[in-house]
Amino acid sequence: MTTNDSIQVSVLGLGAMGSALAGALVKTGYATTVWNRSPGKADDLVAQGAKVAATAGDAVRAGQLVIVCLLDHASVHEVLDPLSNELAGRTLINVTTTSPAQSRELAAWVAHAGGAYLDGGIMAVPHMIGRPEASILYSGSADVFHQYKPLLDLWGTSTYFGEDAGLASLYDLALLAGMYVMFAGFLHGAAMVAPAGVTAGEFATMATPWLTAMTGAFQGFAAVIDGGDYTVEGQQSLEFSDLGDLLAASSAQGISTEVVAMVQRLIQRQIDAGHGEEGFARIIESIKQAT
Amino acid sequence: MTTNDSIQVSVLGLGAMGSALAGALVKTGYATTVWNRSPGKADDLVAQGAKVAATAGDAVRAGQLVIVCLLDHASVHEVLDPLSNELAGRTLINVTTTSPAQSRELAAWVAHAGGAYLDGGIMAVPHMIGRPEASILYSGSADVFHQYKPLLDLWGTSTYFGEDAGLASLYDLALLAGMYVMFAGFLHGAAMVAPAGVTAGEFATMATPWLTAMTGAFQGFAAVIDGGDYTVEGQQSLEFSDLGDLLAASSAQGISTEVVAMVQRLIQRQIDAGHGEEGFARIIESIKQAT
Repeated sequence: MTTNDSIQVSVLGLGAMGSALAGALVKTGYATTVWNRSPGKADDLVAQGAKVAATAGDAVRAGQLVIVCLLDHASVHEVLDPLSNELAGRTLINVTTTSPAQSRELAAWVAHAGGAYLDGGIMAVPHMIGRPEASILYSGSADVFHQYKPLLDLWGTSTYFGEDAGLASLYDLALLAGMYVMFAGFLHGAAMVAPAGVTAGEFATMATPWLTAMTGAFQGFAAVIDGGDYTVEGQQSLEFSDLGDLLAASSAQGISTEVVAMVQRLIQRQIDAGHGEEGFARIIESIKQAT
Repeated sequence: MTTNDSIQVSVLGLGAMGSALAGALVKTGYATTVWNRSPGKADDLVAQGAKVAATAGDAVRAGQLVIVCLLDHASVHEVLDPLSNELAGRTLINVTTTSPAQSRELAAWVAHAGGAYLDGGIMAVPHMIGRPEASILYSGSADVFHQYKPLLDLWGTSTYFGEDAGLASLYDLALLAGMYVMFAGFLHGAAMVAPAGVTAGEFATMATPWLTAMTGAFQGFAAVIDGGDYTVEGQQSLEFSDLGDLLAASSAQGISTEVVAMVQRLIQRQIDAGHGEEGFARIIESIKQAT
């Protein structure tokens, strides 16, 4: 049963993200109770039809489904530890940013208290909530995910990864790692062309379609990695990928080489180990083996 | 005058890329003479209508426009130095991979010999030549670029950056830097999720649209950088961007942290310099200042 009026939902935590999540529920007609540690954050939601709970306990007791969107793992325990007796038979969907290990710990703790647990990782900023571009990753109870999918889909595009409650957080962090590293690569490129009088905007105009196109290489790398044979024909070899030219050109522009040198080290370790004629995807082996 | 039958074009160098470039010209009806140091590479092109020259000198003398696609900067001089007296009044378009400084040197050398020079950087693999996805960057003589643009457009999407012959190569290297760094970021993410049983293919399915979407941030970073004020409202701050969670999660997965640690160092240097509340784009200052 997931019709809007038959589900009592509570939202703990009304920061920018919690407010956006609660707002999407209220707007769609879910009976929503909200709570925030510091007062005043609920006013807009109440004006839209939400009920405000005076305490976290009141909020938990009001909801068969409890959405948790707090600061961090410690905040979740701080708020919920005194309420562990209230969790039996309830469902928690925790979208607080936590590490994979912390998500697993919370899943076990909620299960021990007799509740069901789904962990969520939100790959979006608050103003994107409610649009398909907001990608939200879930793991933990498959039953919870499937039962509440119509509700979850109100927030964005929902993807479920499996029963391991740590998976969503792990994916979240892995995707964020890719993003931050890509940003550093873009900014390195912008720094390279700057001394020639090229603005960052001009460079972005070239780099945006270029790097978008180059994401098309990921599935090819993945096929090689998952196939377990880095010698497959048709790949660019590690020796061909030598970044000496890039390092020299960066130095010639008077900028730091450390961004590109990071990639060169990954390449070099594989070449040194005798794999220079194998494909570029092999540098994942440099990453998989902590030095 | 750029009608096909009025231009005599020569192509020096018939590696995979030179052959693809020459093939696009022959196919469109340009009178094309080809030359390669080692014989036998011209057979397919001759079958399509190209003429083959016995020597580089014969090829240069046969073309008002000479396309140069050799191994490297040294090869260009090796082939053309004995022919410097033949260059007066001719136009060279050099798409050999060279550094910005090497491109500038060749431009000056050709100018001294009385020729016109355009430098090209090919952001494509040979089989892409002839399609709009093949992005080719040019700099050097604006006259040459505009005169021969219909011919250049046969190869892919042509972009001209300015009279500085080194600009195309600089852009080329800066875009490649962005690409290699992005690839390392993707592979780091794939390495993070692998111990949880996630295949690289599964991760690529999430990472491809995610990183594509995140390229949408480049113009925002660029606006801040070009505006010269990293304190503009609405940006994610450097302190918020602390990558400690990513480093810890990577270590917990038993993989190397060096890919993400590179970004964290760029962030930390700006925080240490007192800029923690400023926007993420500020890490370009860490890159611009060689340590």
